[in-house]
Amino acid sequence: MIKRALNVTREADFSAWYQSVITEADLAEESGVRGCMVIRPWGYGIWERIQRLLDDRIKATGHENCYFPLFIPLSYFEKEAEHVEGFAKEMAVVTHHRLKSDGKGGLIPDPEAKLEEPLVVRPTSETVIGAAFARWIQSWRDLPVLINQWANVVRWEMRTRMFLRTSEFLWQEGHTAHATPAEAREETLKMLEVYRDFAETCLALPVVAGEKPENERFPGAVETWSIEAMMQDGKALQAGTSHFLGTNFASAQNIRFQNASGEFEFANTTSWGVSTRMIGGIIMVHGDDDGLRVPPVVAPWQVVIVPMLRDQAEDEALIAYCKTLQAELAKMSAFGEPVRALLDLKGVKAATKRWGWVKKGAPIVIEVGGRDMAGGNVSVIRRDRLYREDGKLDSATAARDTFVGEAGALLEAIQTSLHGEARARMEANIVRDVTDFEGLARYFGPGAKYPGWVEVQWSKPTGAELDKVVERLKTLKLTIRNVAQGSAPADGACLFTGAPAVERILVARSY
Amino acid sequence: MIKRALNVTREADFSAWYQSVITEADLAEESGVRGCMVIRPWGYGIWERIQRLLDDRIKATGHENCYFPLFIPLSYFEKEAEHVEGFAKEMAVVTHHRLKSDGKGGLIPDPEAKLEEPLVVRPTSETVIGAAFARWIQSWRDLPVLINQWANVVRWEMRTRMFLRTSEFLWQEGHTAHATPAEAREETLKMLEVYRDFAETCLALPVVAGEKPENERFPGAVETWSIEAMMQDGKALQAGTSHFLGTNFASAQNIRFQNASGEFEFANTTSWGVSTRMIGGIIMVHGDDDGLRVPPVVAPWQVVIVPMLRDQAEDEALIAYCKTLQAELAKMSAFGEPVRALLDLKGVKAATKRWGWVKKGAPIVIEVGGRDMAGGNVSVIRRDRLYREDGKLDSATAARDTFVGEAGALLEAIQTSLHGEARARMEANIVRDVTDFEGLARYFGPGAKYPGWVEVQWSKPTGAELDKVVERLKTLKLTIRNVAQGSAPADGACLFTGAPAVERILVARSY
Repeated sequence: MIKRALNVTREADFSAWYQSVITEADLAEESGVRGCMVIRPWGYGIWERIQRLLDDRIKATGHENCYFPLFIPLSYFEKEAEHVEGFAKEMAVVTHHRLKSDGKGGLIPDPEAKLEEPLVVRPTSETVIGAAFARWIQSWRDLPVLINQWANVVRWEMRTRMFLRTSEFLWQEGHTAHATPAEAREETLKMLEVYRDFAETCLALPVVAGEKPENERFPGAVETWSIEAMMQDGKALQAGTSHFLGTNFASAQNIRFQNASGEFEFANTTSWGVSTRMIGGIIMVHGDDDGLRVPPVVAPWQVVIVPMLRDQAEDEALIAYCKTLQAELAKMSAFGEPVRALLDLKGVKAATKRWGWVKKGAPIVIEVGGRDMAGGNVSVIRRDRLYREDGKLDSATAARDTFVGEAGALLEAIQTSLHGEARARMEANIVRDVTDFEGLARYFGPGAKYPGWVEVQWSKPTGAELDKVVERLKTLKLTIRNVAQGSAPADGACLFTGAPAVERILVARSY
Repeated sequence: MIKRALNVTREADFSAWYQSVITEADLAEESGVRGCMVIRPWGYGIWERIQRLLDDRIKATGHENCYFPLFIPLSYFEKEAEHVEGFAKEMAVVTHHRLKSDGKGGLIPDPEAKLEEPLVVRPTSETVIGAAFARWIQSWRDLPVLINQWANVVRWEMRTRMFLRTSEFLWQEGHTAHATPAEAREETLKMLEVYRDFAETCLALPVVAGEKPENERFPGAVETWSIEAMMQDGKALQAGTSHFLGTNFASAQNIRFQNASGEFEFANTTSWGVSTRMIGGIIMVHGDDDGLRVPPVVAPWQVVIVPMLRDQAEDEALIAYCKTLQAELAKMSAFGEPVRALLDLKGVKAATKRWGWVKKGAPIVIEVGGRDMAGGNVSVIRRDRLYREDGKLDSATAARDTFVGEAGALLEAIQTSLHGEARARMEANIVRDVTDFEGLARYFGPGAKYPGWVEVQWSKPTGAELDKVVERLKTLKLTIRNVAQGSAPADGACLFTGAPAVERILVARSY
């Protein structure tokens, strides 16, 4: 059996493995502040790549970035009864604006500096952005308003898990207003498609885009759409959502415009967001028992060069050789951008560095020893294919010039291979032949290890009847993920009610 | 007299003029949340340019970005007695983690969800980052640690002014730890130089880099350095600071390392930051009575194309002509980046658009009418030279091809011209011949309109003697800005004490 870089495997304990990747890949750590994490440079570097690439796409579809206040007065939430119910009121509340000495060497909130109206730390910015829209929008000529914000938000979470569920997280939230429902719906689906394409192309994450059922809608939304990714334990991760809000928010916040005939109408609004949660998805889709594998498009460093230094005079020539290699790589291009190559000169042993970068998941690790240099060569490790068939580390010698010339293509091949592997796994783990609840219970029964998703037909019940379905699924710890775009039309009976089915839903365990 | 685009001039009321630029250029607006502003797309676009260009420089000097929690437990501040004194304890304090219905249709902080330990919304992250450094740093091999964070911070301000002093603002904060004081001091000055060069090169802001006097140091710092810019009303704006913290923070937070001989030592730390305040500086240095003038390097759009549409059939050809122009410009380069050209197709009159972009300060506005198109021409307005000598708007006809070919050079010329104008003004407004306090009082007396700065010699008193100097200056509403790097050696008597002077300080009114 091959010894792996992590102490725990996905097979043995998926949850412990996830935490181990985060620690060993230096992605994030506990901060000492309840529910909040420190995102370390390698984790934050991935987020910066996500931000830049997604931001380009958000701007290319006509949106502009703004910044709205962190604090939202309590009264803004009171207007939004339905909306606030959905957030379960678990929010951080600022009540004082000054600290004072307690006379015993400590500090306390100064009772004389109590705010007249408490401020909520934004859990999302619908209310404060809606108030701005009401100011900005007067006439049909002001529409559409297409804006986006990159920000931190806070939702008080009792049970937290790094990247997946933290009290503070980073995200982007798009908010738009349109003259007609049709335009707002088109925007909702356009941004869903931006997310789907971004996840597949940049993160190598296969996802299913589709509409969420009524019970999973964002509070106040008319339609909620999501992209769902399958983790290696078979669970679903909602990796992005796009909401068509109709005039629900506009009427609560008085976002009105005068149409071309001079009549007042409420605007139709949308909102859509993705967060640092996506990094959790990258870990659970691409990670293996040696740590993370970062898709090259979002890898902070795509090629890491590790010189085999020996504290000897010849080190200098080796470093010079590696610097040239780094400079040559920076002139090459992958995915239409310059290759990002790092020369790791830290004062630790080369083998430690190699395994450090394997655990971090740098797509290509280059080792250069004296013999490589003498032959004009480099030793190449591809993170997506770490071992040979005999179980040994697959470090292949290549002529330096050849490697440099092919580096861009190699990175693109690694991206494709990670995506292909994940897509094959997802497709192999969606079952479509379950037709009754007992079959569902069997499929997700006690013996099922990482069972994946089941696509079933249903009659799309609403209200109390839907609640009953949700409750039954809950007994199996299952939820409805979405109705996949492009799924086959229904042709049978509803798994829950026996009535004629109208569509197919994905049912799964989830994060 | 030329009619200007704003209702108020710099000469008439500088403060009202500043607010007018912010409103008319769509930079920011009141948010409805006390002390917090909404940064609108044009203002945020400038901030994004600042972020990207400064971030490149911060990374090029070896720093990595991280993200630390928004919330800091009260106990972290209690360790930092000296540090917390300096922040005057005006901070937003989170005391509850849930809202509940008050039974009357309103919401209140849920008394059952009171936090055991209140959380402070970060006013700066020294304490929480220091705690991380204490975890990360064990040995001299772990040093230096060079990190940076882009974040929002909150300092409760009673009197706020957009961009200059808001309760929430956006900034970057760099934090580093080093083995020796010399290395930490070198880092402090390196980042000061990064800021100085960035301000001059990217923002076209002439600044004076130098060390702040003892009374203006960051609480807990051994040395505080700043860059100071002169606004058009002669006041100084501190546009960035860099602090050498010695072992003061390390000892409070136990940031220790084992040196090569195995002994434990405290690390030497630094911190440095710039904020959205810089945008206030851009406004007050480059703005004029027609609005903002954005330096081309940081302009979200460098060239804005306004077609003179007439709701007629020929509009289509005009739009096609403009689209080609836009595409041609995007292939050109300025400052080593593609030219950023916008085609403004909004449904408002061309003259309204023109003046909108003049007020926003787009560096070049191109107008294209039917006659321009027929002649293969464009009409070019340079924002830095808006009027001809006869007082008319200077809109020059140019052959399209010629304009496209020269667009990059023209943008670079505008950048140079804005910088040159500002530098000449700053240099003309630093006075060096004041040698006694009466002279100072006269210079800044009631008749002085926008008096600028005075460089005086002093004996660098400390403690109570310094306090006396500060108090005397305060009677004239003056503060000591810094001791400019490269200023002439002292050769006379101290303006305050009459003792032999040791250096020259800049004295000014300030924001």
